[in-house]
Amino acid sequence: MNPRVFLDREQLHVGQLVMVTGQDGHHLSRVLRVQEGETIAIGASEKGYLAIVQSIDGKAGTVECRIEQELPSHESVVRVYLIQGLPKADKAESIVQHGTEVGLAGYLLYESGRSVVHLDRKKAGQRLERWSKVVREAAGQSQRDLVPDVSYAARWVELKSWVEQLAPGLVLLLDEDEEVRSLKETLTAYAASKQGPISARGAVARQDGLLGTTGLEGTTEMPRGAGDAGVANAGPADGLRPVVLCVGPEGGWDDKERQAFREQIGGVPVTLGPRILRTETAGLVAASAVLYHFHAMGG
Amino acid sequence: MNPRVFLDREQLHVGQLVMVTGQDGHHLSRVLRVQEGETIAIGASEKGYLAIVQSIDGKAGTVECRIEQELPSHESVVRVYLIQGLPKADKAESIVQHGTEVGLAGYLLYESGRSVVHLDRKKAGQRLERWSKVVREAAGQSQRDLVPDVSYAARWVELKSWVEQLAPGLVLLLDEDEEVRSLKETLTAYAASKQGPISARGAVARQDGLLGTTGLEGTTEMPRGAGDAGVANAGPADGLRPVVLCVGPEGGWDDKERQAFREQIGGVPVTLGPRILRTETAGLVAASAVLYHFHAMGG
Repeated sequence: MNPRVFLDREQLHVGQLVMVTGQDGHHLSRVLRVQEGETIAIGASEKGYLAIVQSIDGKAGTVECRIEQELPSHESVVRVYLIQGLPKADKAESIVQHGTEVGLAGYLLYESGRSVVHLDRKKAGQRLERWSKVVREAAGQSQRDLVPDVSYAARWVELKSWVEQLAPGLVLLLDEDEEVRSLKETLTAYAASKQGPISARGAVARQDGLLGTTGLEGTTEMPRGAGDAGVANAGPADGLRPVVLCVGPEGGWDDKERQAFREQIGGVPVTLGPRILRTETAGLVAASAVLYHFHAMGG
Repeated sequence: MNPRVFLDREQLHVGQLVMVTGQDGHHLSRVLRVQEGETIAIGASEKGYLAIVQSIDGKAGTVECRIEQELPSHESVVRVYLIQGLPKADKAESIVQHGTEVGLAGYLLYESGRSVVHLDRKKAGQRLERWSKVVREAAGQSQRDLVPDVSYAARWVELKSWVEQLAPGLVLLLDEDEEVRSLKETLTAYAASKQGPISARGAVARQDGLLGTTGLEGTTEMPRGAGDAGVANAGPADGLRPVVLCVGPEGGWDDKERQAFREQIGGVPVTLGPRILRTETAGLVAASAVLYHFHAMGG
């Protein structure tokens, strides 16, 4: 396994010389002590590359590499995001860490009605910084091509705007009520409504007719602001639009929130079955199932 | 959500009066302070029941209840077990805790070649006691019908004997090598080889022709000792035989172990895709996918 670092917002091509600096440069040169001629992996603009170390400046903490080849994608064609009601203690840290391993594309930590923890602006900034660091490390260790985004919302309007920006195809509200449709039925109905191949890498799927086409109750409103920009941010244009999983804090979403999810951002309540999952387990389990459904766990 | 306790090895029927004692009795009477007429759930002999509290003896820590009705099953028809290479620190605790929430039927913690932690007999007994307690609490909180077993093996022969006792239909060796078949392909081939309905509760599936029928290389030997007793232990006779997931410790299984898994207990290497999962994440993710595959997460 080659160590993997990330070059943010850089478009790379084979033969290019690149400089790894900052934390990653420090990690490669001083912690891992890579040598000239060694192979490393680099993630950049959502692709993975193999690179050969050309020179190391241990003092400056920088490593120069030459891009050798593009690697097969490690990312799911269907991007899966998690809105997580802010949980207690440092659970959020392990949620974003393990979620990054399994392949989540990004997170919104949301201070919901039943969140016990309340963060002021400064504290929220500190936590966000910490979570981002954890996610970046996990992305390297799990060999992701991208570093998932982490955002924080203290108010519903911020959550709503985050969702609208993403322009998801499906917003799934995880529910303990066994009476609602199962995740599997919902994903199957959603995929069928796309009328095209849904799983093959590079398959063309229709991008129109999203939430309204699943035939589920409670999807009364389409996400607004769903434009090309949102889709471009959200992942490859030739796949399905992103899927957003919504997991409440320890006490679950309150009734007002559940209504807002359904009515304002087209949230579809789904059950993961009769066994009750903790808030720190639910997102990871649901993400595993969704990625598995869309053939994004090895085919 | 009713609090849920377990009566070990007891066959219950509607109308029966039962006494909850021990830790569960203490928990109900002194911690939750249940009252006469309140409803609780009881798991016994792998079924769930609704019961009405008849009387409470807070001093003795006992609660008498009358069984009111049998509840719909909360268990997967296909039982999924985890062999976990003993990990560092207290990771095993969160592995068995979260695994119990998602629906694993039992665990074998195995002190493998690359396990950093080594437990002497006394220490192993203490840890086993602790893990069992964690699993029992998690089983109650997640509303399981049964308390998953936890076992510990320090030697390969013990592991082998545990697997033989279980008589699984499929032993899956989680592998970081992307060249091996994916979990999804493997489960699909396995289910197809059963030539019957595989997912519906109560569906009849053939119980013969197990590992040898998947057409995978490396499945050169059938589990020995696979008799009726094993199947009866393992779950309902009308489902598929159990599935066993094998997850190495931090450093993975060593070559000798991988060979033994393949050649001595019919282990089939499978990949979960190109992203690398930590040892504490892999079992939960794989269990989620397997249970999802077999419609055991809400249909």
